[in-house]
Amino acid sequence: MRAQNRAAHQLRDIQIQRHFSTHAEGSALITCGQTRVLCTVSVEAGVPRWLKGKGQGWITAEYGMLPRSTHSRNPREAVRGKQSGRTLEIQRLIGRSLRAAVNLHLLGEYTLTVDCDVLQADGGTRTAAITGSCVALVDALRTLQYQKKLQQDPLKYLISAVSVGLVDGQVLLDLDYSEDSQADTDMNLVMTATGEFIEVQGTAEGQTYTQDQLIQLVNLGTQGCQQLIEIQQAALAQ
Amino acid sequence: MRAQNRAAHQLRDIQIQRHFSTHAEGSALITCGQTRVLCTVSVEAGVPRWLKGKGQGWITAEYGMLPRSTHSRNPREAVRGKQSGRTLEIQRLIGRSLRAAVNLHLLGEYTLTVDCDVLQADGGTRTAAITGSCVALVDALRTLQYQKKLQQDPLKYLISAVSVGLVDGQVLLDLDYSEDSQADTDMNLVMTATGEFIEVQGTAEGQTYTQDQLIQLVNLGTQGCQQLIEIQQAALAQ
Amino acid sequence: MRAQNRAAHQLRDIQIQRHFSTHAEGSALITCGQTRVLCTVSVEAGVPRWLKGKGQGWITAEYGMLPRSTHSRNPREAVRGKQSGRTLEIQRLIGRSLRAAVNLHLLGEYTLTVDCDVLQADGGTRTAAITGSCVALVDALRTLQYQKKLQQDPLKYLISAVSVGLVDGQVLLDLDYSEDSQADTDMNLVMTATGEFIEVQGTAEGQTYTQDQLIQLVNLGTQGCQQLIEIQQAALAQ
Amino acid sequence: MRAQNRAAHQLRDIQIQRHFSTHAEGSALITCGQTRVLCTVSVEAGVPRWLKGKGQGWITAEYGMLPRSTHSRNPREAVRGKQSGRTLEIQRLIGRSLRAAVNLHLLGEYTLTVDCDVLQADGGTRTAAITGSCVALVDALRTLQYQKKLQQDPLKYLISAVSVGLVDGQVLLDLDYSEDSQADTDMNLVMTATGEFIEVQGTAEGQTYTQDQLIQLVNLGTQGCQQLIEIQQAALAQ
Amino acid sequence: MRAQNRAAHQLRDIQIQRHFSTHAEGSALITCGQTRVLCTVSVEAGVPRWLKGKGQGWITAEYGMLPRSTHSRNPREAVRGKQSGRTLEIQRLIGRSLRAAVNLHLLGEYTLTVDCDVLQADGGTRTAAITGSCVALVDALRTLQYQKKLQQDPLKYLISAVSVGLVDGQVLLDLDYSEDSQADTDMNLVMTATGEFIEVQGTAEGQTYTQDQLIQLVNLGTQGCQQLIEIQQAALAQ
Amino acid sequence: MRAQNRAAHQLRDIQIQRHFSTHAEGSALITCGQTRVLCTVSVEAGVPRWLKGKGQGWITAEYGMLPRSTHSRNPREAVRGKQSGRTLEIQRLIGRSLRAAVNLHLLGEYTLTVDCDVLQADGGTRTAAITGSCVALVDALRTLQYQKKLQQDPLKYLISAVSVGLVDGQVLLDLDYSEDSQADTDMNLVMTATGEFIEVQGTAEGQTYTQDQLIQLVNLGTQGCQQLIEIQQAALAQ
Repeated sequence: MRAQNRAAHQLRDIQIQRHFSTHAEGSALITCGQTRVLCTVSVEAGVPRWLKGKGQGWITAEYGMLPRSTHSRNPREAVRGKQSGRTLEIQRLIGRSLRAAVNLHLLGEYTLTVDCDVLQADGGTRTAAITGSCVALVDALRTLQYQKKLQQDPLKYLISAVSVGLVDGQVLLDLDYSEDSQADTDMNLVMTATGEFIEVQGTAEGQTYTQDQLIQLVNLGTQGCQQLIEIQQAALAQ
Repeated sequence: MRAQNRAAHQLRDIQIQRHFSTHAEGSALITCGQTRVLCTVSVEAGVPRWLKGKGQGWITAEYGMLPRSTHSRNPREAVRGKQSGRTLEIQRLIGRSLRAAVNLHLLGEYTLTVDCDVLQADGGTRTAAITGSCVALVDALRTLQYQKKLQQDPLKYLISAVSVGLVDGQVLLDLDYSEDSQADTDMNLVMTATGEFIEVQGTAEGQTYTQDQLIQLVNLGTQGCQQLIEIQQAALAQ
Repeated sequence: MRAQNRAAHQLRDIQIQRHFSTHAEGSALITCGQTRVLCTVSVEAGVPRWLKGKGQGWITAEYGMLPRSTHSRNPREAVRGKQSGRTLEIQRLIGRSLRAAVNLHLLGEYTLTVDCDVLQADGGTRTAAITGSCVALVDALRTLQYQKKLQQDPLKYLISAVSVGLVDGQVLLDLDYSEDSQADTDMNLVMTATGEFIEVQGTAEGQTYTQDQLIQLVNLGTQGCQQLIEIQQAALAQ
Repeated sequence: MRAQNRAAHQLRDIQIQRHFSTHAEGSALITCGQTRVLCTVSVEAGVPRWLKGKGQGWITAEYGMLPRSTHSRNPREAVRGKQSGRTLEIQRLIGRSLRAAVNLHLLGEYTLTVDCDVLQADGGTRTAAITGSCVALVDALRTLQYQKKLQQDPLKYLISAVSVGLVDGQVLLDLDYSEDSQADTDMNLVMTATGEFIEVQGTAEGQTYTQDQLIQLVNLGTQGCQQLIEIQQAALAQ
Repeated sequence: MRAQNRAAHQLRDIQIQRHFSTHAEGSALITCGQTRVLCTVSVEAGVPRWLKGKGQGWITAEYGMLPRSTHSRNPREAVRGKQSGRTLEIQRLIGRSLRAAVNLHLLGEYTLTVDCDVLQADGGTRTAAITGSCVALVDALRTLQYQKKLQQDPLKYLISAVSVGLVDGQVLLDLDYSEDSQADTDMNLVMTATGEFIEVQGTAEGQTYTQDQLIQLVNLGTQGCQQLIEIQQAALAQ
Repeated sequence: MRAQNRAAHQLRDIQIQRHFSTHAEGSALITCGQTRVLCTVSVEAGVPRWLKGKGQGWITAEYGMLPRSTHSRNPREAVRGKQSGRTLEIQRLIGRSLRAAVNLHLLGEYTLTVDCDVLQADGGTRTAAITGSCVALVDALRTLQYQKKLQQDPLKYLISAVSVGLVDGQVLLDLDYSEDSQADTDMNLVMTATGEFIEVQGTAEGQTYTQDQLIQLVNLGTQGCQQLIEIQQAALAQ
C-alpha cells in the first residue's frame, strides 16, 4: 500500500505556482506531495568566455537543499565550503536537460541561470526541479520576448522529469522518500513533450534489473512525464 | 513619501506563518513587506565539545540568501566555497540574540540550530530573521516539552528586532531596500518583550550622527520592537 | 568509417595488465585503444564510522586524470583545490558499480579503496575504469583470501562497462574521443556477467532519442559488456 | 578594583609609535596597556573594478592576530584556510570607520589598504586598531601630498574608538581582557574629533541593558574617544 | 648489504622510455629500480602575466603521487583540497632546476608545463622526476623546432639529479625507500652535464654531518649525476 | 660596495630581544639589519596522534609575513585561503632545524609550536627566524624546567642559520634583499654550536656554481653561524 492510497502508476499531487519571486525573470514553486522546490531563472546579457562570438546563448543550473529541508538536518554546503558530489551531479543534469529544451542559437548571447532550491524534500527533488524549472524558463523567455530582446521563442518543447522504481518487485511511479529508500532500482527520466528521451538514468541500488524490467520502467516513466507536461501546460495557460 | 504611503513610524505589513516546514521541530515563514525569510529550528541531543559536562544547552544560527532573492542574482556561497563576511556577521548576531532569550541551563544538553534562509530580500532581512526565528524557537521548545524532554520552559522572554534609519534627516522605522540604500545612518535593534536591549548597532553610512539623533533612533526602534512582540504573541496564540 | 576500419559493433583493442603496481593489493592497467587507465585496489581494515558494527565492508572509488592525459592540458585538480563535478560523478558511478559486484557482508569489516587514474584519455575512461577495476578488485579479494583474512569469496559476479552512442543516426559500440564528441546520444552501461543491469545512463547531447533507439543502444551495449567479461576472465585465468 | 588601580572612567596607558615600518606609506604601533597592534597603510594607484571611473578612491582594512598574541595559542588563519567570522566582522568595522573619516572624492583613484595586526592582545584590539590606523592613515595621506599625488588633504576629521562596558553594574571605560570576559554588556564606539558617532555597537553578553544604561555607556565612551583624539593629535604633532 | 647486492656507489637500474604519451609535446617514463615517474611537457603559446612583453619564455612544474604509488595508500591531494608542503617544495625544485637548463630568452614567449606524476614510489622520486623531465623537455624543444616555432635550440645543457646519503656512517648513492628512511643525512643534487651545481640540499635527519662528510656526499653525487647524463644521452640518441 | 660599508664577510647588525611577548612561554624579537622577525614558542601538553605513547615530544613551526612587511604589499595568506609554497617550505625548514637541536625523548610528551612572524623583511627572514627561534626555544625549555615539568634540559646545542651568496663573482655573508635579488647563487646554512651541519641548501638562481665555489660558500657561512651562536649566548646570558 502506498501512502494516501496512491496507485502504482499514479503521480503525487502536483502544483506549480508561477511568479513566486518578485525579482526573477521567471520563477515557479513546484510542489510534488511533500516535496517543494523553488525554481528561479535569472537572465544576464553575455555568455561565458568559451562561447563568446559563437552567436549562441547558454543555460546553466545550480541546485541546493536548505539544511532542514530533510528529515534530519544536513550541514549547509556554504559552511562545509563545497558542494557535494550529489549536488554537482544533480545540477549538471538539470542544466543539460534544460539546454536540450531550448534552441541556444535563437536565444542569442544571453545566459540563463536556473536556481533550484529545495525548501522541503520527500523524494524526487531532482525531477521536480527539472519540471518546475521548465515552467520558470518559459516565463523568463516570455519576459525576454516581452522586453523585445528576443524576436522568436527559442523553446523547442516543454520537458518534464519523473522517477520510477522497482520496489518489492513492483514498478512504481514518482517515488516518495520512504519508497525511494527501499527501492531495488531507481530510474529518472527526462522527456520532451513529443515523447522522446533527453536522459534515462537507471541504477540498481539493491538488486540488478533485467531488460524486461528496464522496458517496464521506461514505459511507466513515459506516462508520468506526459501527465506532467499537461500540468505544466495548464499552469502556463493561467 | 514612503512606498504604499507608509508613515515614518509605521512597520511594513508583517505576517508570521508557523509550521511552514514538516520536518523541523519549529519553523516560521516571516514576511515583512516584500522580505520573506524561512526560519527553521532543529533540535539535536548533545552540545559542542567545549560545553560538554557543563549542564547547559547551546543555540547557534546560520543565515543564507537564495541566489535570486535579491534584485540581481548573487553568486551562491556554496559555489564560491565560503560564506561572506556579511553572512557570518549576520548569523553571529542572530545566534547571540537568541541565546539571550533562553536560559541555557534550563535547556539542558540540547543544541538548537536555527537556519534563516532568505527567500526574497527587500531590506531588513537580519531583523526579520531574528523576529521570525524567535517564533520558531518557541515552537521547538514547545515540541521538547511536549515530548517530555524538558520539564520547564527555558524561554526568558520573546525577543524581536527592527531596523531604523536616518533618511534625508528623517527618522524612519523598518527600512525597505530602497530606503536602506539612501540612509545616512542605519541602526538595528534587538530587544526583549520587557523593553530592554540585547543589541544596538548604529552605523553612519553617509553622514555621522549626533547623540540626539541616536536617542531618537533608539526610541523609534523601541516602539517598533514592541509592536513586533505583539505580532509574535498573536501568531503564537493561534 | 571508424578509425582503424572498426565495425560499428566492434570493441577497440582491449588489454588488461594485472599486477602493474608492486604495492597495491590488486592492480590492473587497462588499455582500450588509446585510452589507458591504471586501477589499484587498496585494502584497509575497518569501515567508515557510519558502518561500524554492522558486520559489513565498504568499497569506495576515486578517479583522476593526469593533467596531460588529454589532447590539451587540463589543470590539475589538486592545484585547483577541488575535484570537478565530472570527476565526482564518475567516481560515484565506479564505487556504486563495484559495490553491486560484491557481497559486502561476506567482505567483513574491510574498506577497499579503488583508485582509477587516467594515464591517457581517448574516450570511454569511466567505462574502462570500471572494467579494469573489477579485475584489480578480484586480485585484491584473492589476496585477502590468500592471507586467510577472508574464508569465502565475496564476489557475486564480474561486472563490465561500455559506452554506446548514436552518431549520424548509427548505433556504435565503444566510442573513441572523436566519435564521442560528435554523438547525438551517449550511453554508458554497467552489467553483470549474468547479463543484468547495474547502471544505464543515456544522455541526449545533440538530439533526443526514441524508445526504439534506446532499445537498440541497450542491445548493442549488452553485447559489448559480454565480450568484456570474456576478456576479464581470460586476464584472470593467466 | 581595576588592575593598576585604574579608575572606572580612566583609559589604560596609551602610546602611539609612528613610522614603525620602513616600507609602508604610513604606519603606527599602538599600545593600550598590554594590547599592541601594528597598523600599516599601503597605497596603490587604482581602485577596485566596481569603482572605476567614478573619480573616487577606496579604503579597505584587514585584521589579524598573531597566533600567540593571546593567552593560549590560537590556530593561524592562513593554516585553517579562512578568516573567522570575528576577524571578518572586525575588519569590516575598521574599513567602514576609516572610510567615514576621509573624503573619498578628494582621495582620487587610490586604494589604501590598512593592515591591523595584533602583536599582543589584552582586550580592545578592534578599537585600538581603529585609533592606531587613523594615525597611520594621516601619515599615508601626508606621504601622498608630499609626493604631490594629492593637492588637498582628504581627511575630514580624526576618528578614535574605545570600548565601554557594564561590569557588576558599574560602567567602565576601556576594558582589558579580564574585564571584558566578565562584562554583562560590552559596547564599542567609533567617534569623530567633532564628537559625532560613526558606529555604536552595544551587545548584552550576560544581562540585557536599559535605555538609561545605554546613555551612560555612550556618555562615558564619548569622553574616552575625546581623550584618544588628543593622544592622536599629540603623536601627529611630533 | 644493499638490496640486489648493489655497491655503495652504484645507481639502481635506470630506464627512460620516451614518447610514453601520445598527446604531450614531450614525455618520458623514467624507472629507477622500483620508482616510476611519468613526465610530460606541455607547450602553450604565451607567458604568465608578469612576464608579458619581456621577450622570454617560462617553465613551470607540477608534481603528484598517485594515491597508491606508496607502500600504504596516501590520501589524494585533489580530495584533501590542497597540495601538501612536500609536494609544493618538490615542484618548486623541479621547475627551478629545469629553468636553469634552458635559455629562456631563446625559448621565446612559450610556457612549458612539466607534469611529474609518480606511478610507483621507492625513494628518489624528486630526483627521478628531474632526470626524466629533462629528457621530455628536450623532446618538447625538438617538437617546437620541428614545427618551426623555434629557430634555435634553447637548451643550455642536460641536467640530472640524484640522491646521496649517510646510512650507518656509509656514503651511499641513489637511496631506495628503505635506505632513505634510515639515513642520518639525505642530500639531493641537481647538476649540469658540465659538472656544475644547480642545487645542493643536504638535510640531517638523524645526526648532523661534518664538512668532510659534506664533501664526500657531494663527490659521490657528482659521479652519479654524470652517469645519469650518459643514460639521458643514450635515450635521446635512439 | 655593500650598504653601510659592510665587508663581504660581515654580518649585519644583529639584536635579539627576549621576552617580547607576555603570553608565550618563550619569545624573541630578532633584528638583522632591517629584517625583524617575532618568534614565539608555545608549549602544550600532549603530542600529535601519530606520536602518542612513544615517550617523546614534538616541535613544529609556522611562518608568516605581515602583508606590508615587504617593499610592496603582499596579499594576506589568510585571505588567499592558503599558505604559499614558499611559506610551507620555510616553515618545514624551521621545524626540522629546531627538532635537530633538541633531544625529543628528554622533552617528554609536550608539543612546542614555534611561530615566526616577519614584521619587516629585508632578506634573510628564514635564517633570522631559525636563529631567533632557537633563543625563544631555550626560554621555553627553561620555563618548563622552572615549572618542574622537565627535570633535565633537552637542548642538545644551540643552532643558528645564515645566508651566503655569490654576487658578481664575490662570496658575501648575510645578504640583504637587494643583494639577494642580484645573487647568482644563494645558500642557506643551519649549523650547530659544535660546528656541524643540519641543513645546507644552495640554489643557482642565475648561474651555476662549481665545487670550489660551494666550498667557499660553506666556509664563509660556517664563520657567520659561529658569530651568531655567540650573539645568542650573549642574549641568553642576560
